[in-house]
Amino acid sequence: MTVRGIFLALEGGEGAGKSTLASALAARVNAEGREPVLTREPGGTPAGEIVRTLLHEDLVPWAETFAFLAARAQIVAEVIRPALQRGAVVICDRFEASTFAYQGYARGLDLATLRNINRLATGGLSPSLTLLLDIDPAAGLQRKHGEDEAIRTGLESIAFHKKVRSGYFAMAADAAPGGWLMLDARRSPESVAADAWSALELLLRET
Amino acid sequence: MTVRGIFLALEGGEGAGKSTLASALAARVNAEGREPVLTREPGGTPAGEIVRTLLHEDLVPWAETFAFLAARAQIVAEVIRPALQRGAVVICDRFEASTFAYQGYARGLDLATLRNINRLATGGLSPSLTLLLDIDPAAGLQRKHGEDEAIRTGLESIAFHKKVRSGYFAMAADAAPGGWLMLDARRSPESVAADAWSALELLLRET
Repeated sequence: MTVRGIFLALEGGEGAGKSTLASALAARVNAEGREPVLTREPGGTPAGEIVRTLLHEDLVPWAETFAFLAARAQIVAEVIRPALQRGAVVICDRFEASTFAYQGYARGLDLATLRNINRLATGGLSPSLTLLLDIDPAAGLQRKHGEDEAIRTGLESIAFHKKVRSGYFAMAADAAPGGWLMLDARRSPESVAADAWSALELLLRET
Repeated sequence: MTVRGIFLALEGGEGAGKSTLASALAARVNAEGREPVLTREPGGTPAGEIVRTLLHEDLVPWAETFAFLAARAQIVAEVIRPALQRGAVVICDRFEASTFAYQGYARGLDLATLRNINRLATGGLSPSLTLLLDIDPAAGLQRKHGEDEAIRTGLESIAFHKKVRSGYFAMAADAAPGGWLMLDARRSPESVAADAWSALELLLRET
């Protein structure tokens, strides 16, 4: 299968501004006369939305991982591959790197195993470009939940989110040139979107 | 971890009488003064019941597989292992052999891969005894859905259920001595339960 479209994944901790950026990029893609497909994981399909409710349960790490992979296998088959085949620009709010960051680096599940089973869900499809919106976990959680929630988020949770962030850094460092772009998410949404657009525009010109 | 209890899995196609047998065995276990834990997969936990609703969606084979594995990882951690540790007799309506029969033998996913990822969900815990309730798919589907439904179940569906049945036969043939018992499910529920109880009673005397 020739993949004609562009597959963009937005990654980063809570409150980094992924969904705001996703909407901004979709609008730009549309203005350029290309078809944007905006989706999120888990979710993005009826099955994925059920998985999203599942994640409110107190799952053991492997159950959580398999739930995410179920949603991923479905969204790849039902949404992402068909969109790429017709040449669309797919903008996905979280994808495989979230599994490696959260279940691997932060929860401690074996990374090589996670990569192998992730490949069963994706069939080997990876993003053309991963945009990592980096923000300090304390700042991100505060942005996400508002001040009261951020205070209630205990120390352990911050420690977890710091591991997630380190995991993202490790993946960005290991990535092939041009495969990952890290953006400082403390800046204004407009400024983040402008940088993200520059990177996406390069890809659009190539295809 | 020392496993003190007994872990019984009931397997077989639709309409073979698994849930009827499960209830009958639980009553006998209870009458013998042992604790029965009756559960079913998927389901058996709040998360598992959500997975059950997920399976009404039109999932691709790997999404379906991961959904079952999510439920399995959760039920093993939340229900089965704790029950076995306190010495209970766990009677589970479907377990890992269903994955191999349905997603492996019938849908054609690679069996070695399924065994490997299943082990991540179970942590290597397998049933002490698997009771296979064997019935001809046409008879089973008729029993399950009533005559009208059985007629609507097309030829393709019967072909699928025949592959499931062959898969179960292959696993029964490969099993360690005493690990699997195949029961002719066309007989009366009382007769099936009597044979199942004889096998379970042997295990109860050993523990």
